[in-house]
Amino acid sequence: MTATLITNIGELTTNVARDGDPCGTMHGAAVLLEGSRIAWVGGMTDAPAQAAARSGAEIVDAHGEAVLPGFVDSHTHLVFGGDRADEFEARTTGAPYAAGGIRRTVAATRAASDEELRARLAGFTAELHAQGTTTFEIKTGYGLTVEDETRLARLAAEVTSEVTFLGAHVVPAEYADRREEYVDLVTGPMLEAVRPHARWIDVFCERGAFTPDESRRILTAGAAHGLLPRVHGNQLGPGEGVRLAVAAGAASVDHCTYLDDADIAALAESETVATLLPGVEFSTRQPYPDARRLIDAGVTVALASDCNPGSSFTSSMPLMVALAVREMGMTPAEAVWAATAGGARALRRDDVGAIAPGMRADLVLLAAPTRVHLAYRPGVPLVRTVWKDGARV
Amino acid sequence: MTATLITNIGELTTNVARDGDPCGTMHGAAVLLEGSRIAWVGGMTDAPAQAAARSGAEIVDAHGEAVLPGFVDSHTHLVFGGDRADEFEARTTGAPYAAGGIRRTVAATRAASDEELRARLAGFTAELHAQGTTTFEIKTGYGLTVEDETRLARLAAEVTSEVTFLGAHVVPAEYADRREEYVDLVTGPMLEAVRPHARWIDVFCERGAFTPDESRRILTAGAAHGLLPRVHGNQLGPGEGVRLAVAAGAASVDHCTYLDDADIAALAESETVATLLPGVEFSTRQPYPDARRLIDAGVTVALASDCNPGSSFTSSMPLMVALAVREMGMTPAEAVWAATAGGARALRRDDVGAIAPGMRADLVLLAAPTRVHLAYRPGVPLVRTVWKDGARV
Repeated sequence: MTATLITNIGELTTNVARDGDPCGTMHGAAVLLEGSRIAWVGGMTDAPAQAAARSGAEIVDAHGEAVLPGFVDSHTHLVFGGDRADEFEARTTGAPYAAGGIRRTVAATRAASDEELRARLAGFTAELHAQGTTTFEIKTGYGLTVEDETRLARLAAEVTSEVTFLGAHVVPAEYADRREEYVDLVTGPMLEAVRPHARWIDVFCERGAFTPDESRRILTAGAAHGLLPRVHGNQLGPGEGVRLAVAAGAASVDHCTYLDDADIAALAESETVATLLPGVEFSTRQPYPDARRLIDAGVTVALASDCNPGSSFTSSMPLMVALAVREMGMTPAEAVWAATAGGARALRRDDVGAIAPGMRADLVLLAAPTRVHLAYRPGVPLVRTVWKDGARV
Repeated sequence: MTATLITNIGELTTNVARDGDPCGTMHGAAVLLEGSRIAWVGGMTDAPAQAAARSGAEIVDAHGEAVLPGFVDSHTHLVFGGDRADEFEARTTGAPYAAGGIRRTVAATRAASDEELRARLAGFTAELHAQGTTTFEIKTGYGLTVEDETRLARLAAEVTSEVTFLGAHVVPAEYADRREEYVDLVTGPMLEAVRPHARWIDVFCERGAFTPDESRRILTAGAAHGLLPRVHGNQLGPGEGVRLAVAAGAASVDHCTYLDDADIAALAESETVATLLPGVEFSTRQPYPDARRLIDAGVTVALASDCNPGSSFTSSMPLMVALAVREMGMTPAEAVWAATAGGARALRRDDVGAIAPGMRADLVLLAAPTRVHLAYRPGVPLVRTVWKDGARV
């Protein structure tokens, strides 16, 4: 079994809470990776003995820089064809964001071959790894036919175990006057066909997308087929998305910009994570959600990229951290926690998002002495080395 | 002489204006580099003949991606010791930005050895190159003694020809009650000592830093010693900085957040560039300058990073482009022009910032089909290959 000892870590973010610090921060630390798991975490003075006990362990000197868990990006839409740079450029001269743009990507995705989509996914996977993301979810939702949604789920499952069925992304153009039939399709044959490739079911519960009643029907059908619920809600205006997600026991409700006190109280009393996606607000010039208010109310907050060609074509979790600090009232520690442990909670994963014995050996070594630098040095590629399942990527 | 032919360029930003397009955009283009200069620019169908004429030219296939001039970062403060991550973190919980923090970096810089500062500069140079910046200015201003300012200018000159004497960064603590004496020092012995290492003189003309009268005296003294003027002005409030810069014939006045109509009219009628530094507003949560208003009035706008440990510790010109588009009303084309040709104007350089025969062979190949992607994909490291003086860096 291969082993790696990372030592001389100036600041280690373990996310194993202690002494009131949710980040479980250690200074002068070392971490031993064995095979795909973390075998030991401790002070660097104990590191030599650990290394000696594992002959052949590679020794990595962190030179006093910071180490944190790999980022967990719990919300992406990475299986698609084409891009919408032209639409983005038009917005820079004043055109508003229109959810209908999704249909353009649907057309481009349907037209793309498996090989094209697979090459694209390989490129995105490399791009995410290079930026420190070691776990990521991918949603379908640009196929919107039984055949295409199944194809997208199958391709996504080749690169991640966190595949979400999002047939209920938008009502496709060909069903514009027959929404009821489309919901029948999503909850019937499409769900049946996609189910073997997916873990989650999601619905875009928003004016212009799916109504609360339709959303409930979709999540209920998914649950009956063993798919766990998650929801897009309260992005473009107030609505029932958050309460519907909580009532369904969703792992996460994503966006959460327009919340009232009842929404926040419901979240705080639930196991549902509020996943904030500041790349969307950056790209669409919408107001940012108020993370401070959520955290102060006791809600668990995650950060994710929402990487997609329409409303947020960034895959940069470091930028999400910087935006959360600049725009959403989060401290750097809260933002880093939300981008790692928070994402793990949003995916109900207890094997990633923290650095502790038994966890997956997914870690990031920064070219910076503290995690604060992710916000302090926005845009600078500070991710130096990434381990996923114990191997450098 | 080494030669490189970059061909199959999907979108080439030449910055040689034509047909009303300041970016001089070409599609399906090729560029030939010979030695440290650009030898030829044309359509890719003519590329084979160009390559054949230079035996041994390396052929680089851009695979339809975008190529642009290397970024010209006309405003940085990269010679310093320590960092101020703690101060940044304190601001995230509500502490305001205070210019007095500069004095902390002065203390850390004075305490750093030449070797420490040289290692730091080497690290920053690599960091800038990796992000596509091929020309950058560096200011002194964290020494504030004759010996230390000279030392910083000398070290900066080891990595760039664009060194700026900024003894008038802030009045150092030991001169707090003797500002007149400090200005005498800056305009006398300090200027004499720094002059051999610098091309520019700069002054922080702002409430809490230097008054307009002091600023004029400093620029006049610099000019008498052959240093060309540039100014920090109108960052934290309205003031005389812009008009003073225009009157002095400064190449650039930097920050430009608080401008009245007379300031803008003065800029529009001058050769002085307005250099905007959105990393500062991102980091300090100040209001962004209004680039749209400046451009519409006919002012030449540049974008720069202001990379420094207090108010903007980013060196990412791609992020400056993205912020200019998100926050300052610029189109992607305007922002890319400002970060390349605009920076060159701000440094009065006619050999960088454009792709044309005879210019320095400083180019960036993106992992993206258009320059729009720099704003459309914020935070993602899209800089794939960088040439400086014809060599890959």
